[in-house]
Amino acid sequence: MNARRVAYTAPRTLALEAGTAAEPPPGHVAIDVAYTGICGTDLHIFHGSMDARVDPPQVIGHEMSGRVAQAAPDVTGWAAGDNVTVMPLVPCGQCPACRAGHRHICHHLVFLGIDAAGSLQSRWTVPADTLVRLPEGLPLDRAALTEPTAVAVHDVRRAELRDGEKALVVGGGPIGLLIAVVARRGGADLLLVEPDPYRRGIAGSLGLATLDPATADTAEAVADWTGGAGADVAFEVSGAAAGVTTAIDALATRGRLVQVAIHPAPREVSLHRFFWRELTLVGARLYHREDFETAVGLIADGHIPAESLISRIEPIDRAAQAFEALEAGAGVMKVLIDCQSEAGADAR
Amino acid sequence: MNARRVAYTAPRTLALEAGTAAEPPPGHVAIDVAYTGICGTDLHIFHGSMDARVDPPQVIGHEMSGRVAQAAPDVTGWAAGDNVTVMPLVPCGQCPACRAGHRHICHHLVFLGIDAAGSLQSRWTVPADTLVRLPEGLPLDRAALTEPTAVAVHDVRRAELRDGEKALVVGGGPIGLLIAVVARRGGADLLLVEPDPYRRGIAGSLGLATLDPATADTAEAVADWTGGAGADVAFEVSGAAAGVTTAIDALATRGRLVQVAIHPAPREVSLHRFFWRELTLVGARLYHREDFETAVGLIADGHIPAESLISRIEPIDRAAQAFEALEAGAGVMKVLIDCQSEAGADAR
Repeated sequence: MNARRVAYTAPRTLALEAGTAAEPPPGHVAIDVAYTGICGTDLHIFHGSMDARVDPPQVIGHEMSGRVAQAAPDVTGWAAGDNVTVMPLVPCGQCPACRAGHRHICHHLVFLGIDAAGSLQSRWTVPADTLVRLPEGLPLDRAALTEPTAVAVHDVRRAELRDGEKALVVGGGPIGLLIAVVARRGGADLLLVEPDPYRRGIAGSLGLATLDPATADTAEAVADWTGGAGADVAFEVSGAAAGVTTAIDALATRGRLVQVAIHPAPREVSLHRFFWRELTLVGARLYHREDFETAVGLIADGHIPAESLISRIEPIDRAAQAFEALEAGAGVMKVLIDCQSEAGADAR
Repeated sequence: MNARRVAYTAPRTLALEAGTAAEPPPGHVAIDVAYTGICGTDLHIFHGSMDARVDPPQVIGHEMSGRVAQAAPDVTGWAAGDNVTVMPLVPCGQCPACRAGHRHICHHLVFLGIDAAGSLQSRWTVPADTLVRLPEGLPLDRAALTEPTAVAVHDVRRAELRDGEKALVVGGGPIGLLIAVVARRGGADLLLVEPDPYRRGIAGSLGLATLDPATADTAEAVADWTGGAGADVAFEVSGAAAGVTTAIDALATRGRLVQVAIHPAPREVSLHRFFWRELTLVGARLYHREDFETAVGLIADGHIPAESLISRIEPIDRAAQAFEALEAGAGVMKVLIDCQSEAGADAR
């Protein structure tokens, strides 16, 4: 089989190109990528919204699983055949954020799949210290959910969620669902707000209480749910202006809002509400290695509902069509790309 | 001397009325008020901006010091002549906030001086459990700064400020200055942003570094000051839209913004910045009893620059003129009203 890769070349254009299988340079490891999940950031790139940052042609993708193909001679601890995922962050180590111990949000962070070549290719070469080991026997399609699960683990950790607290999740896409599942496992009582009936249906099938903001009065529902107190925590995962207001209005005195979604434009925020109820807003971006390792454990132990999250798996030569289907949006959660598939292979 | 009181009767109107010296009801203590400071909230009431909450005629004022005149027979621990200040909060004890231990921001909080009679009168009767003892020998004019100092103590505590951290204070009125002084005493390195030259002058005389946002590039100055990292903490005390942006833009990765000022209207906030740098916003309102007691200690030990903060003391029959002078704004920090003064007494 020949190496292949999918590059973003221009807005709404992905090119399937011949890949390379060069020797990994010192400190690097070449991986045979098994699966790459498509995430919201990949869609933003596809739309051309991140052209100021992405330099085409750019191989995108950063949610993945695979097997070590070859480690550079100076790399220890990794051997061909090891099952791995990659924490796609390369911090500079020198900036104020790195020096303060926040390497995951380094001021000059190189994010693999955005700022450098990503995993939407059959063979991907990465710095050895980005590798995270997968347990033997963990199916690689499930393992491709590690990165978004690590996001959810980080978000829940940023919330400092305690057993028995009530948490509202605003937005029921893959990250919102993962946050709800991870938070529930931590002992929280969850309510998920999501307008799309397909997504509400999936959440419901996982035993999560859901609310349609188009037909329900969220503030009233939260008051009923919490005996008038409000939610202890709200996760804003919608990226919508209305989602921010819903989350803030739902919070109890001293409640915490975790800002997960990206809001490119400034939003109108009731700072008076933050003052009046002594609320806290916490920004959450990416993850630490411990979040990644926790995520691997949650997946390996069967706590992440992979069947519900993975809507389908497409062969790499149909990546462009998969992006278009995701854009249409309805009836899809997570789509994985099978990066080792032969051309013309059947979709799952 | 006859009892007198100052009541807010209509927008921009204060009436000097005859007060009463009735026996305190059970559980209450009557205080001979020495001094009442005028604060921003009092000015908001005077402007008519709080007419939805304030029910005229209302005796306003809540920053005070005085001496116990008479305690109700069932009150223990207080005797005539005791020097006291009052923590002007009467929580309901039943609401979700009270039950969760946040009585100071009770959902049905009665704030003395806003929701019930305040201290701008010669004799004030309050629930005994609002009293806070003042040390013997502490001059009562200084002691009238306890309430705003407690606000500052609470704000600094909400910031979780650590020794050696850099903190920006946006807004150099009495609360901004008190925050800067309290934070510096906690070991922080301070920079105060304030457009008014008189207020910058007072801050400078206290050894605080200041910046005029009209002539200096705050972002650049903060970058210079922090070696490019940004401030660990910013206190937003200005109440202005530009102050919010200044504070957010100044913060380092994982920096904390403490929202102190009141913003009646929603503000445009860069949630992306909160996400990108994993910032935290913390609302801060009022204080706990421990903040009040800490404030008394700071004043008694000479750590609060009362001479710089108290611009002047006016007799109670000139309260209306004092409000008008404060409105004009320039050249004034804190004005105290001498609530025992005879008509026509000289201003300090």
